[in-house]
Amino acid sequence: MITPAVDVQLVLDLLGIFVFALSGGLVGVRARLDLFGVAVLAWVAGLGGGIIRDVLLGATPPVGIYDPRYLGTVLVSGLLVFAFHGRYVELRSSRPRLRLDRISASVKVLDALGLSVFAVVGAMKALDLGAPALACVLVGVITAVGGGMLRDVIVGQIPEVLRRELYAVPALIGATVVVVADRADLLNLWVVWAAVLLVFTIRMTAVRYDLNAPTSLTTGERA
Amino acid sequence: MITPAVDVQLVLDLLGIFVFALSGGLVGVRARLDLFGVAVLAWVAGLGGGIIRDVLLGATPPVGIYDPRYLGTVLVSGLLVFAFHGRYVELRSSRPRLRLDRISASVKVLDALGLSVFAVVGAMKALDLGAPALACVLVGVITAVGGGMLRDVIVGQIPEVLRRELYAVPALIGATVVVVADRADLLNLWVVWAAVLLVFTIRMTAVRYDLNAPTSLTTGERA
Amino acid sequence: MITPAVDVQLVLDLLGIFVFALSGGLVGVRARLDLFGVAVLAWVAGLGGGIIRDVLLGATPPVGIYDPRYLGTVLVSGLLVFAFHGRYVELRSSRPRLRLDRISASVKVLDALGLSVFAVVGAMKALDLGAPALACVLVGVITAVGGGMLRDVIVGQIPEVLRRELYAVPALIGATVVVVADRADLLNLWVVWAAVLLVFTIRMTAVRYDLNAPTSLTTGERA
Repeated sequence: MITPAVDVQLVLDLLGIFVFALSGGLVGVRARLDLFGVAVLAWVAGLGGGIIRDVLLGATPPVGIYDPRYLGTVLVSGLLVFAFHGRYVELRSSRPRLRLDRISASVKVLDALGLSVFAVVGAMKALDLGAPALACVLVGVITAVGGGMLRDVIVGQIPEVLRRELYAVPALIGATVVVVADRADLLNLWVVWAAVLLVFTIRMTAVRYDLNAPTSLTTGERA
Repeated sequence: MITPAVDVQLVLDLLGIFVFALSGGLVGVRARLDLFGVAVLAWVAGLGGGIIRDVLLGATPPVGIYDPRYLGTVLVSGLLVFAFHGRYVELRSSRPRLRLDRISASVKVLDALGLSVFAVVGAMKALDLGAPALACVLVGVITAVGGGMLRDVIVGQIPEVLRRELYAVPALIGATVVVVADRADLLNLWVVWAAVLLVFTIRMTAVRYDLNAPTSLTTGERA
Repeated sequence: MITPAVDVQLVLDLLGIFVFALSGGLVGVRARLDLFGVAVLAWVAGLGGGIIRDVLLGATPPVGIYDPRYLGTVLVSGLLVFAFHGRYVELRSSRPRLRLDRISASVKVLDALGLSVFAVVGAMKALDLGAPALACVLVGVITAVGGGMLRDVIVGQIPEVLRRELYAVPALIGATVVVVADRADLLNLWVVWAAVLLVFTIRMTAVRYDLNAPTSLTTGERA
């Protein structure tokens, strides 16, 4: 890993944590959790994927439980959602349907951003720790998807990643690009950013055009 | 860590495990689980927080999967709930509402006891293993809250800790007291017990006066 | 551990992974997940228990996230369920009740097979890594039961293992046989296969005769 990439890794990591924590906070507010619950969901969504990543790689204690920059980012994110959402409700309490639709759309965009940076950063950290190539790809996907899955399971929902539009596939592609580039000695800043952009573009295209992975029952219902 | 504190740590740990396992067993009985399910929920609630703690700190295998004192405590606790609850139902089957209310109250007190000792013991173990100060505080909270969260998620409920009265905040305060005292070279038996008492008092005050952390939707509904 | 047993361990492991992944894929199809979701549930059910095992034993990264043989087995299993189930639905879409009953029965047999090999293989891996005897027994049970529990919790169901017929008890017996045989220096291929057969027989007997562990509420309702 070249030196400048480490700084990019930190910046990307903080960006992904921030936006994923926002999505976690929003889910927490919708589940009618209290301030602490919203903060926990922000933490789980923002840092849960990275904590699973570090535990799987044996990098304990995970940065997600002690790095002040990460914890501070999550805390600010959770408080923003809590404060912003409260005011938002006051302003628009007469149009609850519109409000919920907008929140739902925000969650999708934030998820796409978090997904992109986490897949790339997760794979990069696994490469740094010398894990096998296949492990690096899977760790990238798990980093990207794990926080959101924990977030949904905690509030009793089947994880969105398992049933909605193409979600983990772009993460898989992005992590693979990073790992292949590393093995080919071609990993640099441009590749990193390109991989992030690639994941985001695929994911948002899936959201925009409502592209879904095939489901078995859909096939059956057509028959 | 001074030597006598190690014994206190064991005693506190066993006490916390016992009462948390009782709460887990009660939740298991209410979820109509069989004897094995009740034992598993007792184990998850009693030792789950400590197992997460040890995994996060890299202290594997976690004591929660092999220490006979811990496993024996959980087993006795689960069997007590199973046997006691069965007789209790026979005696009072004509007044199911009263019975469930009493169980609910018991769970709250047991939870408060477990919460207090786990927050303090969790932080102490992290200090022993030389983790960063912030990690020690978070590990204390996770130890205190993790078992109960796993217990609730397994039976399909949104974790009580995320939506009810002030729950994790006292754990956060207690763990912080222990870590600050350690950094100031002031950690001794009195501080340990005072921290446990502090957490328990705050928590029971919250239960008694139904103190809640603020929720975002409540604010909105008032507007 | 004698050398030939290592190969048996691999064969058993792959067999258990395959059948457990089938059960995970079937649950995923029933929960109306998309292709990726079905693959994830196959992976969680097939390799989740082993991943928990490796994390608890500090054997990171877990083989379940990088071994191509394991990942390939899960992938093939998930795709088979997806393809087979789709065709199955087409053929029998007029008799949905029969179809679901058959799937349910298949899941039970597959679960029993996976349970048997995972309990034995899990305990053997813990023995290989020099864990305490009690840890080896529990790790065997956790390996056998963990994937199925994760599978059920992810789709929002109370884990089947906690409420249905005798499930974990045979795993406990099988893991204990392996650990005791190892401590008595009697562990060989015959013992390994006998332990697998023992677990499978007990489990299928429980399924066939609908044997249940006692439940506390049942006792109460009889009174």
